[in-house]
Amino acid sequence: MGDNVRIVIDTIGGDNGAAVCVKGAVKAVKKNPNISIILTGHADELNKLLASEKYDESGIEVINATEEISLHEKPVEAVRKKKESSLVIAMNLLKEGKADALISAGSSGAVLAGGQFIIGRAKGVKRAPLAPLIPTTGEPSLLIDCGANVDAKPEVLVQFAKMGSIYMESVMGVENPRVAIVNIGAEEEKGNALVKETYPLLKACTDINFIGNIEARQIPFGEADVVLTEAFVGNIILKLYEGIAKMILGELKGAIMASPKAKFGGMLIKESLLEMKSKFSASNKGGAPLLGLKGLVVKIHGNSKEEEVISAIEQCRAFVENDVSGKIVKGFEESTNGD
Amino acid sequence: MGDNVRIVIDTIGGDNGAAVCVKGAVKAVKKNPNISIILTGHADELNKLLASEKYDESGIEVINATEEISLHEKPVEAVRKKKESSLVIAMNLLKEGKADALISAGSSGAVLAGGQFIIGRAKGVKRAPLAPLIPTTGEPSLLIDCGANVDAKPEVLVQFAKMGSIYMESVMGVENPRVAIVNIGAEEEKGNALVKETYPLLKACTDINFIGNIEARQIPFGEADVVLTEAFVGNIILKLYEGIAKMILGELKGAIMASPKAKFGGMLIKESLLEMKSKFSASNKGGAPLLGLKGLVVKIHGNSKEEEVISAIEQCRAFVENDVSGKIVKGFEESTNGD
Repeated sequence: MGDNVRIVIDTIGGDNGAAVCVKGAVKAVKKNPNISIILTGHADELNKLLASEKYDESGIEVINATEEISLHEKPVEAVRKKKESSLVIAMNLLKEGKADALISAGSSGAVLAGGQFIIGRAKGVKRAPLAPLIPTTGEPSLLIDCGANVDAKPEVLVQFAKMGSIYMESVMGVENPRVAIVNIGAEEEKGNALVKETYPLLKACTDINFIGNIEARQIPFGEADVVLTEAFVGNIILKLYEGIAKMILGELKGAIMASPKAKFGGMLIKESLLEMKSKFSASNKGGAPLLGLKGLVVKIHGNSKEEEVISAIEQCRAFVENDVSGKIVKGFEESTNGD
Repeated sequence: MGDNVRIVIDTIGGDNGAAVCVKGAVKAVKKNPNISIILTGHADELNKLLASEKYDESGIEVINATEEISLHEKPVEAVRKKKESSLVIAMNLLKEGKADALISAGSSGAVLAGGQFIIGRAKGVKRAPLAPLIPTTGEPSLLIDCGANVDAKPEVLVQFAKMGSIYMESVMGVENPRVAIVNIGAEEEKGNALVKETYPLLKACTDINFIGNIEARQIPFGEADVVLTEAFVGNIILKLYEGIAKMILGELKGAIMASPKAKFGGMLIKESLLEMKSKFSASNKGGAPLLGLKGLVVKIHGNSKEEEVISAIEQCRAFVENDVSGKIVKGFEESTNGD
């Protein structure tokens, strides 16, 4: 496979089954011959799905898994015990250097646990944050950490700020990304104990473009490229985004169905609305990378479709080709020396 | 004024000036003769505004203030020094029992500081939370605490749960209100250290209807009547609500203006959309009471209009007539005895 970017996809656990992974993989290798894919899962099913597709067969490999990790299992236990699950097989391929990146739509907890216990953190990295791209009125922002490390310490948040900054610059092509910390006011002296301790550390960093506090109401308007926060708050932000968007779009539908006049009006704006809806769907932005590990692990939403799989593959390619992992490790060695 | 509910309104500091307070006050006393209002602010201006209104003059009194507290002042300092400001005069009226409730659209920080230092907490109350009603697909929910006490301890959150429950039952008429704690998962063992410590304490409370965790994505669907959370997270939730709603409604406008066809469609659904927009406006739900003080202090949004002032007056009336303060104090005496 030479200089190809090798991506392993765990095909079990997503709401839409293995077919979306297979279709996404086929399209991705057709579009970019420098990508090669390994699919882990039920080999019979995968081979059958692949048989109906036309593609360069050297670009996709199938590895059979005899176990499954369900959403209801205790993540750490499941990852430790189920060595023959599609996720653990994929994790081991990444660990052994047989793949450069891993994508899974399965249990978030199991993906986080596998990342931590099988792949392990890169040198110098204290904690590995989950960092999805979230929709804004402009370009998407990176929300870091959105659930991997609750009650993290200030020095851990500073590392997240640096990782997020490297990611946005290298993978998303944002020049000198603006990093802001989520706070309950715009002024420097506001906040809880964690933010108050973290703020001066961020201010002292010379390798990031720290712009200060961001209030939650500014987040949807893209006022920072890297939206830094502790995992509990980050998870609340991510899920509230989803909840409010769902509520408003639902109410909008209700408003349109309320009268024959409005119904007719709704038909006329349907296209524009669908476009808008797709923009708000956090899941179409390529998934959430778990940063700071020895290999790239990307968690995609459980209900991901073909497009999201393709988008995640593309994100992995950019990540690997731009050596984001190497840059993160290098950044931390330098900053450790500088301490 | 006899058995009237006496409400003092600080008319300085809101974005829309004293006129909205005057108009709201006039309408409220016309509608309900059992309400009497004191307006603190620039007496000349207030009297001039009142002169053009027809109402029972015994129902509204004006008290002159020679100082103002601006949004940019340090709250605690401003409240301590500016004894002749409209807010401090109003606070003192409440403290001295010359008013039953206070409404202000001015600086949140100053309102919180005044509540704490001038009014003071009721007996048994550890901290006074700010608790706005937030819009959901059903009836509004109470979000408690949304910014008054960051880094609060578990036993403080338990008190907030009880106060919120009493409020929703007595003021909003919700029978046996469902209390849930904001968490990053539905399972009992999830969460940060604060939530993990607070959860069993809530579970052990016999005087509230604790239904467990609520994830942020469920909040907009009204899955709890009292949404309990620490102030930092609560403030993020409140402001993100505002930000995402603003973003989506802005994008919706953009989508409608995008083509002549969509523009025509938009005209047909305009009424339904305006109705929807009003539903999402958190500010029209009567403001945020600061609970657990010796008197009722209600903070309304800086950009409140006449309707919001009326709605806050109505909320104050229900609060006073139902003796919510007394019930809160009683609840805490009982639970303290029970400990």
